[in-house]
Formats: sequence, structure tokens, C-alpha cells
Amino acid sequence: LMERVLLSHGGGGTMMEKLIEEVFADAFDNEYIRAMEDAALLFGNITLTTDSFTVKPLFFPGGDIGKLAVCGTVNDASMRGAKPLFLTAAFIIEEGFPVEDLKKIVKSMAEAAKEAGVKIVAGDTKVVEKGSVDRIFINTSGIGVLYEGANVSIKNAKPGDIVLISGTIGDHGMAVMSAREELQFDTPIFSDVAPLNGLIEKLMTLGEAIKVLRDPTRGGVAEVLYEISKMSGVGIKIYEEKLPVKESVKSACEFMGIDFLHLANEGKVVVVVERDYAEKALEIMKSHEYGKDAEIIGEVNDSKLVTINTIYGTSRIVDRPIGELLPRIC
Amino acid sequence: LMERVLLSHGGGGTMMEKLIEEVFADAFDNEYIRAMEDAALLFGNITLTTDSFTVKPLFFPGGDIGKLAVCGTVNDASMRGAKPLFLTAAFIIEEGFPVEDLKKIVKSMAEAAKEAGVKIVAGDTKVVEKGSVDRIFINTSGIGVLYEGANVSIKNAKPGDIVLISGTIGDHGMAVMSAREELQFDTPIFSDVAPLNGLIEKLMTLGEAIKVLRDPTRGGVAEVLYEISKMSGVGIKIYEEKLPVKESVKSACEFMGIDFLHLANEGKVVVVVERDYAEKALEIMKSHEYGKDAEIIGEVNDSKLVTINTIYGTSRIVDRPIGELLPRIC
Ligand SMILES: Nc1ncnc2c1ncn2[C@@H]1O[C@H](COP(=O)(O)OP(=O)(O)OP(=O)(O)O)[C@@H](O)[C@H]1O
Ligand SMILES: Nc1ncnc2c1ncn2[C@@H]1O[C@H](COP(=O)(O)OP(=O)(O)OP(=O)(O)O)[C@@H](O)[C@H]1O
Ligand SMILES: [Mg+2]
Ligand SMILES: [Mg+2]
Ligand SMILES: [Mg+2]
Ligand SMILES: [Mg+2]
Ligand SMILES: [Mg+2]
Ligand SMILES: [Mg+2]
Repeated sequence: LMERVLLSHGGGGTMMEKLIEEVFADAFDNEYIRAMEDAALLFGNITLTTDSFTVKPLFFPGGDIGKLAVCGTVNDASMRGAKPLFLTAAFIIEEGFPVEDLKKIVKSMAEAAKEAGVKIVAGDTKVVEKGSVDRIFINTSGIGVLYEGANVSIKNAKPGDIVLISGTIGDHGMAVMSAREELQFDTPIFSDVAPLNGLIEKLMTLGEAIKVLRDPTRGGVAEVLYEISKMSGVGIKIYEEKLPVKESVKSACEFMGIDFLHLANEGKVVVVVERDYAEKALEIMKSHEYGKDAEIIGEVNDSKLVTINTIYGTSRIVDRPIGELLPRIC
Repeated sequence: LMERVLLSHGGGGTMMEKLIEEVFADAFDNEYIRAMEDAALLFGNITLTTDSFTVKPLFFPGGDIGKLAVCGTVNDASMRGAKPLFLTAAFIIEEGFPVEDLKKIVKSMAEAAKEAGVKIVAGDTKVVEKGSVDRIFINTSGIGVLYEGANVSIKNAKPGDIVLISGTIGDHGMAVMSAREELQFDTPIFSDVAPLNGLIEKLMTLGEAIKVLRDPTRGGVAEVLYEISKMSGVGIKIYEEKLPVKESVKSACEFMGIDFLHLANEGKVVVVVERDYAEKALEIMKSHEYGKDAEIIGEVNDSKLVTINTIYGTSRIVDRPIGELLPRIC
């Protein structure tokens, strides 16, 4: 392991996985952490999750750190097939931060919480001297309650299952990147940040047929596929021509030499479902505001590899992100 | 309200109360936040709390940010008369932070969690570029389960109730201050940071007689007395000669012109108990490792004021902290 913590240790790829396993999982040493789920499952039916948000800039096309902080935890709390109910919100604010900006952020949080039907029930406020934090960081933790018959886990995928995604890939990552680097695109790129609890609730009507739900945030769709492959001990094959991607995001990625499968998404879910229910799951997502562009993108096999059938008819290994993309993307 | 967030808005006194009420409580607008409790009470018996830790220096006499991050949330999760069970731990780490220091901090967290009998079941790891965070900040959130017959709330104090404290006042605040300012004292001052769940469990054998439990962290004992006075609509009188304070802390405070009642404590609890059970509560605390120096320090009355009977036989109002003491004390 490195001597010093590097930016890539926070990038949601292999470097972060290594740091978590070697430093944190070892010390905290319990089955919840080793399970590497989006949320821990407690008392048999309560989900608990936490995330800190250090996005830069604070305000980006399609959202801000406040909306992101609520949606990110609402989504993680939902990903075990649960209805999110309560959030905590802890703020670390730089001395001199404009109260008007704080009010805007808090307003976004309140609106997102209202849309998601969750209550922010506890909080904390720390202020540090100028220069000790870059403007403001927010942590949110969340509690959800499992839906009847939910059995959703990263280790549930089986060969033959079908893989879907709820919409276009890479929007958030590219939106923040373009805001950060002040890139101009013909069609502006907006973050997809959104609360997915409503979409998840509908999907969960399929009960146990829903095997895996994972929001592809840092490390993107590629990292999620690798996590499913690793934790379920399976292979996954995806079809390039089936991947929903906005033209603007695709061309920006080609221009910048980035694999859109590595870009963070903040309003998407990767779904692994029993083959017989795949069409039903697709239909359910397409009928929801946040699933209009849903697609079946691949299937689970026993190859232990994550591969992609390219538009040229060849098949290759999907690169797994190491965490080298832009830091502070969420 | 100010145009900009000031250090005092994070000081645990009147300025922070104002910011929380005018910016956060207004927007989040629910009874949990307005209740201003140490932890929200959910589903009738589950407590949820959150705190971020920005202490400077990271390592101080008697503890470090890791032990503090676990104990602070274990204590808040206990303060509604609950047994803490599960914690989340989210790290925001500066690029270049030494992995050895991270391992030391994580080891302290694991040890404190083990002592408190809690499991750290979910986490998050963000790394930000050099200069965007001062080394490392940690957020912990915690879940507890109420003890049988617990009815502990900041609004429960009634005239005639007795006020106790579990031990010497001001240790943590002075320990961190002395480490920060590199002050030398004849006898070194150590933080009192400790998990109080065991002490609370014993106290809760008195059931409903335990009216209020509050850990006097930022803003110290003075702030807690004011919060109880405000939320219970009562007055509180304390006796100066009964206040347990280490000589070293007392003389340091006199030297620096600080009221030790404003200093943060990270291993103490202020208890309000029915008069008839005061001696029993004192006995219970004195029999516990973290309550050896417990004392009865005052009583609740209907004056709506927080006053102190001084050693000179006079009575005066206790100054309420505005949040002006050293920032980043916890
Ligand atoms: N930004 C915030 N938004 C909503 N509620 C908040 C916020 N900050 C604090 N609160 C609430 O205000 C009350 C007091 O918070 P505070 O952080 O002072 O308590 P504490 O955690 O016990 O003290 P300390 O942080 O010094 O350990 C709690 O009920 C907390 O949930
Ligand atoms: N420092 C840590 N200590 C313990 N567990 C951690 C830590 N960081 C992450 N984890 C655990 O590792 C798993 C992956 O965490 P990660 O933060 O990548 O998930 P996520 O929150 O869904 O993604 P993102 O943070 O990009 O939104 C989760 O189970 C999380 O609880
Ligand atoms: Mg997730
Ligand atoms: Mg997340
Ligand atoms: Mg707090
Ligand atoms: Mg407290
Ligand atoms: Mg606290
Ligand atoms: Mg996370």
C-alpha cells in the first residue's frame, strides 16, 4: 500500500477498493463492511448508509451539492430494495462562506428531501477557519425500511440474469467536469442527479426477481459491473450498441479520451433481474420519470469476466477504473 | 443574520443556535430538528444522530480524532436513554495524508468501538486535492435502541429536579487548547474523551426518574444548562463549590480568562433526575469508571434563569457562551 493517501484512493476504482480493504475493513472487521453493499442491512429490515459530498463546483448544470447530498444518500438507502425515510445532514463550513449560498444549498436539500419523501431529522454544524476546508462539505446518512419480500444484494447475480440501466450514462460526471473546466458544448450537459426511491419502489413490485440494484456513482457503470462480478462470483457481458448515452456526452468523452463507462452517474441505477422478468422491469422503468431511457444492456454469465460486445462485432474486456478521473465529482 | 458564516456560528453557543434556527430548522421544518435533542427518536425506540469531527491537532493528550469520532456519536446516540449499536464512518482525506497516521486513527476508532460495543457498519472515503481540507475530517452517525421505560428528553426537566455531572469539567477543551497553543502546565491536562454508553446503561436502571441526559460538548456545561432551561421552560441554579474541576484546568482557565463552564467535555454527561433518585443516581455514577468524580451540582427551579451560587455567597447569572472560544475543539 502507498505511504500517502492519493487522489485515486478516493476515485471509486481499484485504488479505493484497496485502501478500504487494507485500512478500514481490516480494522472495523465485521461482515457489514466486508459485504461492500450500498447500505448495511440492520435488524433484518433497516438500511443504513453514509456519504460525504465534496463536489466542485458547488453549483453545476442540473444541480448543486445540496441536491446531490440528499439524492446520493436517498439512492444508497434505496439500493437494498428499501424505502428511505430519515436522513442526517452534517455541514463543515469555511469561515466567511456566504450565508446566501448556504441558504440556496439548504433550500435544494429541503426540496430534494420533499420530492423523495424523506425527513432530515438530525444534523451538525462545524465551522473551520478560512483555508481549512474548500467552502463547504456535506455528509448525509440515511435510514430506509425494506420493502416486503426484498432480497437485493451485490452477491445475488446468477448466470442467465439480465442487466439493465435506468437511463443515459455519464451525464453527472461530464456535467461537473465541464463546469469545472469551463468547457462549452453545443448542447449543454446537465447532471442527472435525482432521487430514485420512486423508481425503486415500482421495481420492487417484482420482489425477489430483483437481484441487484446499484447506483453507478464514482467509478461509473464499469466499477459497478466489476463489483457485481466480484461479489457474486460471476461474469457480465454488455452490448455496446445497447448502451444509452447522450450524443453530447459521447462526443465529449471521445474528445477527452475518457471511457463514459467510468463517468459518475447520480440519478441512475444498474439492475440485475431474473431473465423472465427483464421485459417487465424494463417496462416499469420506462414508465417512470427517471427511467424513460432505460435499456437492457447485457447479461450475467459464468465467465468471471466483465466484457463488452463492441459495435464492430468484437468482444473485449471492459477496463476497470483505477480512480484516475477528476476528483471531487460528487 | 450575518452575511457570512463566522467561526462563532460553529462554536456551540448562541450564534450557532441562531444559524441552525434561521437557516436549517426553517428549511428542514420538522419536529425532530426543532426538538434540538442529542439524537432523533424514530420508530418509537431507535435513536439517530450525526457529528462531524474537525479537531485540531488530530492527536492530543488523552485521545485523537478517531477515538473522538466514535465516542462523540456513541455518547449522542446514548443520550436519549438508548444503547448505541451501529455507527457509520465517513472520511474526507487530504491528498498526501500519511497512511500511517490514517491507520493510527482507524485503530483508535476500532478500539473505541470495541469498548463501546458498537459496530461500524457503513462508511465512505473521499480524497480531496492538497489544500482543500486540513489533513482529515471524519463524520460519524449512530443508531441506538431505547432502554425499557426510557423517557429522556431535553424538555423533561421540572422544578425540584436535581442536576448532576458525571465528573470533572473542562478537561477536553483545555487539553486540545493546550496542545494547539503548545501550553505547558505543571500537571499535563488530558482529554476526558470516553464512551459513556456503559454509564448511561447503569443510570437507565432508574427508568423514568432520569429526565434529561446531555453531553456538554461545544459550549460546555453552561450551554447545556441553557438548552435545558429553554426547552424545558425552567430555571436552573448551580453551586460553584460543588462543581468538580481539576486544579490544573481551573488555574489554566483563570490564567487565560476562560470560564471553564464554557469548555467542551467529551466524556461527561449532565443528568437531570427526580429529586428522590438523586442520591441513587450519584451512587450509580460514582461506582462507574467514567463517573468517579460525579457530583450533585444544582437543582431545577421555576425562575427561567440559569444562575450560580458563588463561593462568595452571592448569586449571579451564568454567562451563556456565544461561540467565541477556540474553533475546531472537537
Ligand atoms: N445543520 C444542521 N441542520 C439541522 N439540524 C442541526 C444542524 N446542526 C445541528 N443541528 C441539530 O441541532 C441540535 C444541536 O446540535 P449540536 O451539534 O450542537 O449537538 P451535539 O452533536 O450534541 O453537540 P456537538 O456537535 O458539540 O457534539 C441537534 O438536535 C442537531 O441535530
Ligand atoms: N472508510 C470506510 N470505512 C468503512 N467502509 C467504507 C469506507 N469507505 C467506503 N466503505 C464501504 O465500502 C463500500 C463502497 O463504498 P462507496 O462509498 O464506494 O459506495 P457508494 O457510497 O455507493 O459510492 P459513492 O460514495 O461514490 O456514492 C460501502 O459498503 C461502504 O460502506
Ligand atoms: Mg451507491
Ligand atoms: Mg453513494
Ligand atoms: Mg453536533
Ligand atoms: Mg450532544
Ligand atoms: Mg455531539
Ligand atoms: Mg460512498
